[in-house]
Amino acid sequence: MYSHHFSINNIPFGIASSSSHPDKAAATRFEDTVIFLDELAKYHSSLSSSTVSTFSLETLNSFAALPKSQHAETRKWIQSHLTNIASLPPSTKSPISETTLHLPLSIGDFTDFSCSRSHVLNAAEAVFGKRSLPPGFEYFPVGYHGRTSSIVPSGTPIVRPNGQYRDEEGKVVFGATKRLDYELEVAAVIGKPSVLGEPVAIENADEYIFGCVLLNDWSARDIQGFEMTPLGPLHGKSFATTISPWVITLDALSPFKIPAVARNSDIILPLYLQDPDPLPTFEIELKAEIQPKDGSEATVICKSKFSSLYWTLRDLVAQQTVNGCSLRTGDLLVTGTISGDKTGENGCLLEMVAKGGIKVKNVKGTVETKMFFDDGDTVCLSAYAGEGVGFGDCVGTILPAK
Amino acid sequence: MYSHHFSINNIPFGIASSSSHPDKAAATRFEDTVIFLDELAKYHSSLSSSTVSTFSLETLNSFAALPKSQHAETRKWIQSHLTNIASLPPSTKSPISETTLHLPLSIGDFTDFSCSRSHVLNAAEAVFGKRSLPPGFEYFPVGYHGRTSSIVPSGTPIVRPNGQYRDEEGKVVFGATKRLDYELEVAAVIGKPSVLGEPVAIENADEYIFGCVLLNDWSARDIQGFEMTPLGPLHGKSFATTISPWVITLDALSPFKIPAVARNSDIILPLYLQDPDPLPTFEIELKAEIQPKDGSEATVICKSKFSSLYWTLRDLVAQQTVNGCSLRTGDLLVTGTISGDKTGENGCLLEMVAKGGIKVKNVKGTVETKMFFDDGDTVCLSAYAGEGVGFGDCVGTILPAK
Repeated sequence: MYSHHFSINNIPFGIASSSSHPDKAAATRFEDTVIFLDELAKYHSSLSSSTVSTFSLETLNSFAALPKSQHAETRKWIQSHLTNIASLPPSTKSPISETTLHLPLSIGDFTDFSCSRSHVLNAAEAVFGKRSLPPGFEYFPVGYHGRTSSIVPSGTPIVRPNGQYRDEEGKVVFGATKRLDYELEVAAVIGKPSVLGEPVAIENADEYIFGCVLLNDWSARDIQGFEMTPLGPLHGKSFATTISPWVITLDALSPFKIPAVARNSDIILPLYLQDPDPLPTFEIELKAEIQPKDGSEATVICKSKFSSLYWTLRDLVAQQTVNGCSLRTGDLLVTGTISGDKTGENGCLLEMVAKGGIKVKNVKGTVETKMFFDDGDTVCLSAYAGEGVGFGDCVGTILPAK
Repeated sequence: MYSHHFSINNIPFGIASSSSHPDKAAATRFEDTVIFLDELAKYHSSLSSSTVSTFSLETLNSFAALPKSQHAETRKWIQSHLTNIASLPPSTKSPISETTLHLPLSIGDFTDFSCSRSHVLNAAEAVFGKRSLPPGFEYFPVGYHGRTSSIVPSGTPIVRPNGQYRDEEGKVVFGATKRLDYELEVAAVIGKPSVLGEPVAIENADEYIFGCVLLNDWSARDIQGFEMTPLGPLHGKSFATTISPWVITLDALSPFKIPAVARNSDIILPLYLQDPDPLPTFEIELKAEIQPKDGSEATVICKSKFSSLYWTLRDLVAQQTVNGCSLRTGDLLVTGTISGDKTGENGCLLEMVAKGGIKVKNVKGTVETKMFFDDGDTVCLSAYAGEGVGFGDCVGTILPAK
């Protein structure tokens, strides 16, 4: 019935500009048309002025911080205009191909959690030759803080980073990474801020989540491997992180709510991680593709499911705040790499190293093996929940090191 | 000659408010008087309007992002008024005791590096019973990303965090940390931003550093210990980080420049870490004190030296950006715990655990042993370079868990 990612059932929020609308402003997308909300509000608005005043700002932070009721009201207001989109004034509309999409929010903090049991087991096998979980994995979402200055919107080229690492003979060298990887992830974008010192109860977690974006946590595995003991990843990841430009709201995702996976029944979780919601997560199909620089056809390199995660986005809100840490509007709470157990479900290349890498079509129609990315490769993440609700693309092309 | 931290040789920058100046504004401090720069500029200004316009903002970010020449000009302009401070209009001045000091900048990213060889060796001995360095330690500054939403100005109470950890029998429990610790650190505050994808050469590093503050990287050692493998510290630190309110500029610190410590001569560092500056660091005396809740006299628990660090602030700028990561105004690049090798030079309590803890005076005049902090304890960091140039205090009092 619906196949486009941006049907009337979606109504994502982003920040856009175009030649006819050079100032950045809040926007939504219907099929292949971007609609500027500041212009739409001039044409017709039943919304409160506190909502409308956020539409002409350069980020969605002020809009995202509004009560959820105002987001829902905005969503309905937009939907009411889509039944006759042809009648909207030209100033409100721009074809997606002629629109620039920007970072949707100013991001204060970015925590990347480790939510996928399969990813952790696959990665441990690849690095240590043994499928084992980190000590805390089944007790709470473990994770690390990420860098926010280098978060870029989809389409921004990714410069291959330099750094120090051990070469194949074990010698420490400085140079361009030889093991550039992606990670297929989903980020919860915080709307309502929380108060320092006051944990958010898991039953209230949704109130704080404005919506979700796709996130590619680009990783230089050689740099990361050398630095990681004991303080975790830093320079191996801080060179760039790509997010998709459209924030998909929980309202849009709510028809796809499903139960979470079963957890280790030997562990009784503390109350702050006992979620009373029987449908705390979402069925979303995730996909990663690579388009090699030779212009050959894209190859799907991963298909995995958001619902396979051991920890939910609601768990991440509870975990991040249980120690009193505050949330600010625009913060990202992220799932970590989302992988499955089966062949073709690996959400990063590291997991495939021991299995001989990935198979990629080249321009001659033959299939080549790739261990990590080459300069010129384009990586595209996408996600689709169903019924015309998808995330669109999260794309980056790798440029040579400087 | 000078003994006050805030003599005419210092001229720090901060954000202040008072009952007579309720709006936050840029300020400096001379001895025990806070001077509001927006009011001082109304009284007399020889500064450019681009400088003056930043004085009435709620953070120092815009001021910090100005060229260094404008900071130097502002410093001289302030100094010219201090010779006759009595003649300044009352609206420009507020006694420090009647002034509220706020977070001086909006902080986008906070990287905590590991620069103290002694700390790393002492901590390894405390945790693993063996003095060993992390694999990368002598090759580059290793580190982790910290949380910025929970960075608070000196004086903000610190609520003891809850979390999961292994108790003494090895059972995983949830509750208030029993091992609450401090870390004595210094942060470089970024002024001039850098461009994503473009490393900052080490010889230009000072251009990007607006100044320095003290930083207490509060740590819950039990929570941290359970979560840290393999992704590093997160919830064990994200509950709160305290910084001192006054940014001490490199101009104020420049009389105290000295050579860095000798490095491992077996390792040839890559060019990006070869600093041509023969005086790349500073002689600064650091101190930590504890004031127990019983009101007894404060006990000095650490004295250490900034100059003992294996890596300099200039190294941190080069390291953070070598992979293309960008710096934004307000970012913090931090030294990690600053410890020495001798007794009394331990910049956190963890290092003292195996040595039987610290000795603290109580109200009865007797001395008690303390392994970690109790509720009600006040921890005060301070630092003094010399000639009337100091950092003032960085203070936090521990409140019971919620």
